[in-house]
Amino acid sequence: MFEVRFKEQTLSFDAPLSVYDAARQLGPVSRDVLCARVNGKTADLTSLLSEDADVELLTFADPEGAKTFRHTASHILAEAVKRLYPETKLTIGPAIEDGFYYDFDSPVAFTADVLEKLEAEMKKIVKENQKLEKFTLPRDEALEFMKDEPYKVELINDLPEDAEISFYKMGEFTDLCAGPHLFATGAVKAFKLLACNSAYWRGDSSRQTLQRIYGTAFTKKEDLEAHLEKLEEAKKRDHRKIGKDLNLFMTDDLVGRGMPMFLPKGTIIWNELERYIKEKEMKLGYQHVLTPCVGTVQLYKTSGHWDHYKENMFPAMQVDEETYVLRPMNCPHHMMIYKNQPHSYRNLPIRIGEVAHDFRYEASGTLKGIERVRHFCQNDAHLFVTPDQIKDEVSKVCDLIFDVYRDFGITDYRCVLSLRDPADKKKYHDDDAMWNAAESALREVLVELGINFTEEIGEAAFYGPKLDVNVKPSVGNEITLSTCQLDFCLPAKFQLTYKDRNDKDQTPVVLHRAILGSIDRFMAYILEETMGNLPLWLSPVQVEVIPVGNDFNDYAEEVGKKLADAGVRVHVDLGTDTMRYKIREAQLQKTPYMLVVGDRDRQNGTVSVRTRTGEDKGAVPTEQFIADALEEIRTKKR
Amino acid sequence: MFEVRFKEQTLSFDAPLSVYDAARQLGPVSRDVLCARVNGKTADLTSLLSEDADVELLTFADPEGAKTFRHTASHILAEAVKRLYPETKLTIGPAIEDGFYYDFDSPVAFTADVLEKLEAEMKKIVKENQKLEKFTLPRDEALEFMKDEPYKVELINDLPEDAEISFYKMGEFTDLCAGPHLFATGAVKAFKLLACNSAYWRGDSSRQTLQRIYGTAFTKKEDLEAHLEKLEEAKKRDHRKIGKDLNLFMTDDLVGRGMPMFLPKGTIIWNELERYIKEKEMKLGYQHVLTPCVGTVQLYKTSGHWDHYKENMFPAMQVDEETYVLRPMNCPHHMMIYKNQPHSYRNLPIRIGEVAHDFRYEASGTLKGIERVRHFCQNDAHLFVTPDQIKDEVSKVCDLIFDVYRDFGITDYRCVLSLRDPADKKKYHDDDAMWNAAESALREVLVELGINFTEEIGEAAFYGPKLDVNVKPSVGNEITLSTCQLDFCLPAKFQLTYKDRNDKDQTPVVLHRAILGSIDRFMAYILEETMGNLPLWLSPVQVEVIPVGNDFNDYAEEVGKKLADAGVRVHVDLGTDTMRYKIREAQLQKTPYMLVVGDRDRQNGTVSVRTRTGEDKGAVPTEQFIADALEEIRTKKR
Repeated sequence: MFEVRFKEQTLSFDAPLSVYDAARQLGPVSRDVLCARVNGKTADLTSLLSEDADVELLTFADPEGAKTFRHTASHILAEAVKRLYPETKLTIGPAIEDGFYYDFDSPVAFTADVLEKLEAEMKKIVKENQKLEKFTLPRDEALEFMKDEPYKVELINDLPEDAEISFYKMGEFTDLCAGPHLFATGAVKAFKLLACNSAYWRGDSSRQTLQRIYGTAFTKKEDLEAHLEKLEEAKKRDHRKIGKDLNLFMTDDLVGRGMPMFLPKGTIIWNELERYIKEKEMKLGYQHVLTPCVGTVQLYKTSGHWDHYKENMFPAMQVDEETYVLRPMNCPHHMMIYKNQPHSYRNLPIRIGEVAHDFRYEASGTLKGIERVRHFCQNDAHLFVTPDQIKDEVSKVCDLIFDVYRDFGITDYRCVLSLRDPADKKKYHDDDAMWNAAESALREVLVELGINFTEEIGEAAFYGPKLDVNVKPSVGNEITLSTCQLDFCLPAKFQLTYKDRNDKDQTPVVLHRAILGSIDRFMAYILEETMGNLPLWLSPVQVEVIPVGNDFNDYAEEVGKKLADAGVRVHVDLGTDTMRYKIREAQLQKTPYMLVVGDRDRQNGTVSVRTRTGEDKGAVPTEQFIADALEEIRTKKR
Repeated sequence: MFEVRFKEQTLSFDAPLSVYDAARQLGPVSRDVLCARVNGKTADLTSLLSEDADVELLTFADPEGAKTFRHTASHILAEAVKRLYPETKLTIGPAIEDGFYYDFDSPVAFTADVLEKLEAEMKKIVKENQKLEKFTLPRDEALEFMKDEPYKVELINDLPEDAEISFYKMGEFTDLCAGPHLFATGAVKAFKLLACNSAYWRGDSSRQTLQRIYGTAFTKKEDLEAHLEKLEEAKKRDHRKIGKDLNLFMTDDLVGRGMPMFLPKGTIIWNELERYIKEKEMKLGYQHVLTPCVGTVQLYKTSGHWDHYKENMFPAMQVDEETYVLRPMNCPHHMMIYKNQPHSYRNLPIRIGEVAHDFRYEASGTLKGIERVRHFCQNDAHLFVTPDQIKDEVSKVCDLIFDVYRDFGITDYRCVLSLRDPADKKKYHDDDAMWNAAESALREVLVELGINFTEEIGEAAFYGPKLDVNVKPSVGNEITLSTCQLDFCLPAKFQLTYKDRNDKDQTPVVLHRAILGSIDRFMAYILEETMGNLPLWLSPVQVEVIPVGNDFNDYAEEVGKKLADAGVRVHVDLGTDTMRYKIREAQLQKTPYMLVVGDRDRQNGTVSVRTRTGEDKGAVPTEQFIADALEEIRTKKR
């Protein structure tokens, strides 16, 4: 007699049973069940249950269920490849988020045509409904079994002495694999091969270049179709594609991964964003500074970054007797600027702002365009306040955030009060009294200000709690755009003071805040939201002047000069292409206005206005167009 | 019989003679003679001549003569210190440019009072006209002789096995010293102790902190006085002093040596300079980009910086499989931007500009304020041109340089054609044909443009010759502000191309150019030239509004608001200080205009205008003042 538990039901058996057979004792097993979780580990439905096992049946709705499903799909792909191109060598093929891939070393180039053939072959394998059978071998037999697959041999040799060496067989195809897998291939009806990229064996650029085939698989056709549609939409909105199409930025491994370079047009957008936020801040009494993007290691030991944030920092550089490090944040520099002068309660709050260069280590696999990078510019500021100014200043920061969101039409956001995880003493500065005070203070202020927020544990900065404002982009996951953090910690570490009414030294409180977050990431966000159709004020080229023919080049230049003199970013296309082609080009470049000028325009001093959406607004007096454009720019119309 | 040569005269002697005795054979020896150069090495006048020696007598006009003179002065200082504070331990005391210093380990603090006492004692020693006598000792006797001077013992122990261990005795005082020295102390009549700073023994921060007394000495009182006056003037003009007084920038060792931080007021000046030059460039068809201040080591291997410029670079940082390094120059980044797109002769020249962050290693002893730093921002650009565009583009760059100089009133400059040193294959890219072509091309263009220039060997960039424009500041040495460099080298290394008229690939030529040099250094220069009295357009606070009393605070604020709305940088001083004090403060802050407002002003809508020079311009209608100020800003009036 041995016992196993299915959720709330306990069953007793005389002999060991497979998961599937045990489950059937409780009634029919749904076809949605893909695998199981046994004692916390994912397992095949065919695996034998041991005494006293906790069992849970998993479907595609469970992450492990979906992973198992897609892992089997990757084996189906591998089988198809071996059937059609037997000279191909296998490497590895895991499930990933939203799909799977398999890396092959093959003399065949996996072109789009080949991928189609592979899909057809995979369909056959699905139809054959091959059973997946697991078996294990001793090391020497395993090596003998895989002797024609050099990558598998390397994998086997790298397995620990006591590891189980398991295989999954399906039809004529067997792969070295730890599993788990589906019961049979028949379940994988909805799948699609998406792309083929190159990859290095074991991610090591000094080793063999492989071909990585990406695919995805779902249990239902509708889900696959919805996913493919989402991918299409995401591709169109992907700021990397927009950035390339519109010549906004570039990356190159020779410059460095995660180190994008802004091309002239991207630089214009970047500069406009910088100017926009700095002007807002200046009106609110911020003082801007310029500080270097390095500090000494000692500076970050003083601040605590070296203890709590080192894994996100670049390695240190020894220069004579000093050790410099690229900075991940700007707080220490701004603390030193505050400390450079004595202060009285009379001149607080002091608001030190900077669009500041920072460097953070990010794993190369997570890098993405100008959104997730190793070098970026924060729209940062540190407000040095007395305790009784906290509420007023947090309130002003919130006002600024929501004011900016109005300008950009951001409505889908939510506020999060990010708190420390009291158990995590490594990540957070260890001072419970300080934390309790800071967290209560920030919570109270948010409540008083009537801001709706949820609380999240373990999301605070290492020095204090924060209000994060998260937005939901059109594609992809929620991102944090803005933040306002309450810091009772660093001002003490830097021994900052101000004289109170009684001429006694007090420690100021510091609010760390960012509105656009990083200029770079905000630019990525706004490019994806607008699909590159930036509002006029942000467009690198605001107006393209296009003569209907060469005879009107002079008039086109005259119009262009008037616009440029008025401060409009204008380009006059005097090239040899046809008018129609030039209009099309300007539309592809998402130029907001095209002014097509011909004989009647020259006679009447007008311009014929077309928009990037194809709208034809007809002839408008040039001066009128300029006045309208300037007003549209001034009001930052969306 | 042995022979010695004095310039063109050869003398023969029966027995070895001292320099002085030999010289006397030629006639009376002037009192201006301080020491000699014997076979190329500086020597005492008392040193014995060997057979076949070449002898030259040196005066203060010779750098080695001045050095010997000041070295003796430093011994006189040391003797004075030992006489007055015998418990002091001696370390080292060399002559330096314009003076000398001596480092002491003393329980006595060398305050200004103490320095005065020491000067008085030095005068006595000069009056005593002590002879300086050299003698040598074997190592063991030397150590015994210096047993009470631990630093000297360390120095002796560090001397190579076979080194001569020599001493100079004067009166009761003897110092371990290689010499040479003056014949006697009587010659050092004009001297002055200037300052006392702390210094580390052997420059090592882990060792003993010493007191370093700085002094200077001249042969004539007038020369000393002229020098002290120059020092006073330099001190007043020193941008570090101005920067501190006006709160423009700060440095702190915790942030890093050579890493200045611009405070809010300094940031305004910096931003104005940046905007100024970028606007000029934009009108001339430059396209600005934004690139990160790091690159991979591979990038700098490609460019040649790693071979030719490494000693000026920061150490590399290994991040996963990549090696990054802080960039010392921006050319490689801009080359990569050019390379990002195909080009035709039709769209050249392409002018890529950037106010770009750079890092260079500078020895900590050479660092100075914001002038000589480890982090700075170059006003950089790279022009990609066809060979037949070289002349036109160099000409335009020169026009821009001289246009900018006119705006800033820079008239004292000279042009230098900086060429390679053909013998130095390590410093310069090794391709004589390329160099000959580039140097001839640049020389020809300068001649054709009618620019007066001198040529200097060994001053070229490693990749090509350059036109440097050097200015002579009010104090200190000539500095290079602007540069225009002709590069046939890097475009080939980066395999840059453009299609010529026949659709064939050609390599573009690149002009590297900087107009303001680095924004930071230009700011230092302009602060020293103006003594902080910046023109209105560059002043951080352009107008200070000062009510004659509290009753007029409202009117002062009203005036302030009008100015701010018009875009003038204004501060309204509503503090509790007296009007007179506020005016004085604004003058010290070099604020160009003070608007003192009282009853009559409020009645008439006027402001009473005072300048920072103390001029009282009387009452002016507010609108009139604003219009005048805006015009002064617009025209960048000096």
